[in-house]
Amino acid sequence: MPSISKKGQLMPQSPIRKLVPYAEKAYKQGKTVYHLNIGQPDIKSPQIALDAVKVHSLDILAYTRSEGSEAYREKIAAYYAKNNIHVKHDDIIVTTGGSEALLFAFGSIMDVDDEIIIPEPFYANYNGFSTASGVKVVPVISKIENNFALPPIEEFEKLITPKTKAILICNPGNPTGYLYSKEEIRKLAALVKKHDLFLIADEVYREFTYDGIKHYSIMEEPGLEQHTIIIDSVSKRYSMCGARIGCLVSKNKEVIATALKFAQARLSPPTLAQIASEAALDTPQSYFDDVIEEYVERRNTLISELKKIDGVKVATPKGAFYCIVELPVKNSDAFAQWLLEDFNVNGETVMVAPAAGFYSSPGVGLNQIRIAYVLNKNSLIKAVNIIKQALKVYKD
Amino acid sequence: MPSISKKGQLMPQSPIRKLVPYAEKAYKQGKTVYHLNIGQPDIKSPQIALDAVKVHSLDILAYTRSEGSEAYREKIAAYYAKNNIHVKHDDIIVTTGGSEALLFAFGSIMDVDDEIIIPEPFYANYNGFSTASGVKVVPVISKIENNFALPPIEEFEKLITPKTKAILICNPGNPTGYLYSKEEIRKLAALVKKHDLFLIADEVYREFTYDGIKHYSIMEEPGLEQHTIIIDSVSKRYSMCGARIGCLVSKNKEVIATALKFAQARLSPPTLAQIASEAALDTPQSYFDDVIEEYVERRNTLISELKKIDGVKVATPKGAFYCIVELPVKNSDAFAQWLLEDFNVNGETVMVAPAAGFYSSPGVGLNQIRIAYVLNKNSLIKAVNIIKQALKVYKD
Ligand SMILES: Cc1ncc(COP(=O)(O)O)c(C=O)c1O
Ligand SMILES: Cc1ncc(COP(=O)(O)O)c(C=O)c1O
Repeated sequence: MPSISKKGQLMPQSPIRKLVPYAEKAYKQGKTVYHLNIGQPDIKSPQIALDAVKVHSLDILAYTRSEGSEAYREKIAAYYAKNNIHVKHDDIIVTTGGSEALLFAFGSIMDVDDEIIIPEPFYANYNGFSTASGVKVVPVISKIENNFALPPIEEFEKLITPKTKAILICNPGNPTGYLYSKEEIRKLAALVKKHDLFLIADEVYREFTYDGIKHYSIMEEPGLEQHTIIIDSVSKRYSMCGARIGCLVSKNKEVIATALKFAQARLSPPTLAQIASEAALDTPQSYFDDVIEEYVERRNTLISELKKIDGVKVATPKGAFYCIVELPVKNSDAFAQWLLEDFNVNGETVMVAPAAGFYSSPGVGLNQIRIAYVLNKNSLIKAVNIIKQALKVYKD
Repeated sequence: MPSISKKGQLMPQSPIRKLVPYAEKAYKQGKTVYHLNIGQPDIKSPQIALDAVKVHSLDILAYTRSEGSEAYREKIAAYYAKNNIHVKHDDIIVTTGGSEALLFAFGSIMDVDDEIIIPEPFYANYNGFSTASGVKVVPVISKIENNFALPPIEEFEKLITPKTKAILICNPGNPTGYLYSKEEIRKLAALVKKHDLFLIADEVYREFTYDGIKHYSIMEEPGLEQHTIIIDSVSKRYSMCGARIGCLVSKNKEVIATALKFAQARLSPPTLAQIASEAALDTPQSYFDDVIEEYVERRNTLISELKKIDGVKVATPKGAFYCIVELPVKNSDAFAQWLLEDFNVNGETVMVAPAAGFYSSPGVGLNQIRIAYVLNKNSLIKAVNIIKQALKVYKD
């Protein structure tokens, strides 16, 4: 039998998917499962976007340009201008989700064995894209005790080698909910300039900031034009995860020209989804106001309920819709599985994401879980209560 | 300034896109351009598929399962059964176009520096996916004189090294229009079994076969279950290139489990397009009958017109909608550019794809072009006449 690749063997399984068979077992037992494990919001997509595809007048569902239609990219540029990010349509390549933008960015700037420094815990699929590209993730640990703030710049500097090509941040952060300050971005800017590195920012949660704090993008930072690459997506912004539209943005012409070659090899981003995503850009501000209000309420509910549980530690997220929670357990993987297999409160249980998969340092985060607050307030209260009851009886 | 990757520098530009600036110049000069250069058919998508997205009842455009929805995969399996390919839904991973299926296949079975043997001329983007994966394409030359039939098996055997992991065929072929016979598939089957290789078949043109010849799939060949991977797509079958839906099919469980990890990293194939593609599976047979009739007419027209030109050689395609044409010129790249920049017949000219980009052997195919017969008969007649007139005056 011919054998699969080493790379394929090394590809990590998503920390979220590993538990799916146990969730299916729970369904079969007739349990209701509250899903705190995935970043699939329950928020409705903007009506304007849903309607746009209903009235399409296409006869032929044809390829678009590999970089996305010019009209759509013009509108994206206008959206960025409103966010104080000044780019032209040809600084933008439309991608199949933020996922593909990550793949193109990695491919365009890194070769096999190159290194990328990422504050951990980080979005688990960064591991997948790194493995697929043969790139080494070098983690720098951010701590729950510091609310997952940017680790001291000296910690980054210690890790830089001749193989280091880039620093990747997620802002606001999945899974931490951390929002980087202007000062933190400044420090990173100085660092990448000093060492001639790229700075990639995954800003797919840009709109999701709370407590009156404004998002500060790496592309607002002057003098960094040749260094910065933004990863973006409509998935979370408009609750349109299934559209599969995102983009890669850079003012570095060589980066764009190179990413375009990757884009041309795969021909075109999805056409129907571009129609929906272009329409979504006209979503009224009231939509976002409502969504942010909803998330703030959810966050407040979640955090205050969690803080009532003995031995639980949590950092209040300032953005996105995730938080990392430290539990009084040794192995959150086993705990998460046990919740699905062996526990329930009145026939209800909870699915959470064990946090170890968000770290690349082995043995870190074993007593942590990630919670996505993508459910309504009442469900969140019930779900946290289930965790509370579970911790009373659970033994690792 | 930080530098881009070696891989990014090596990524080939699509042979089709290189000419785009010259086409844009021709438009500006007010010329009409007949596009024989791309595989974007002018055939209407099935109404049933276009309508399906118009009546969608989604509130939230959510992620689907990474491997595609189970309902859709069940229906794909039923489609294959009708084509004498017997697979289950879990032998199938739904991908973002055949393009992504190629990427997953390459990633799942090959590491950097591994080798894949491909009869050339071949679909140009195989070069792109190979470069992106760090894999070496080893071409085996098929010749216009033999209608691009499978090169003798000894030619393959000579090229096999310890690094060889797979043989990739495109059947029916882009850019040759060649349709492999059962005997040719048998020979390849024996070869991959003997040397323990994978056999990948890109069958995105499966339905497009002419002159009463039936397509014979690698998955119809008994005893080859652990070796075969099919690359498939709705792009050409339903003239739905912009949907971006395809699939990877294999009965080798390890291949599927590995490809699934790549699929999970990118979360989900596009949701709206899956709705359209699932509906497309109910397209009535009359749609295909009409399409095939249309393509046969176009092909016959094209070939008979081309044969009237002195010094032109062409192999009659038996499938797909491309053919390779040998011209009495030294450098078809320059000729194609000249057609756009400096030539017209009554304000009309033609865009063709220079064939060198479909070869990976340097210096081969320089006097060839690829023509996609994706235009109606009258346009084809006019387009070939333009080439005829052009050859009378062109000097390389
Ligand atoms: C931080 C982050 N980046 C990127 C993505 C990829 O999302 P998509 O490919 O749907 O745009 C996600 C999805 O959860 C995410 O959380
Ligand atoms: C032979 C072949 N394979 C694969 C593809 C990829 O098509 P898609 O990604 O649209 O499915 C094409 C497109 O032209 C092709 O000609």
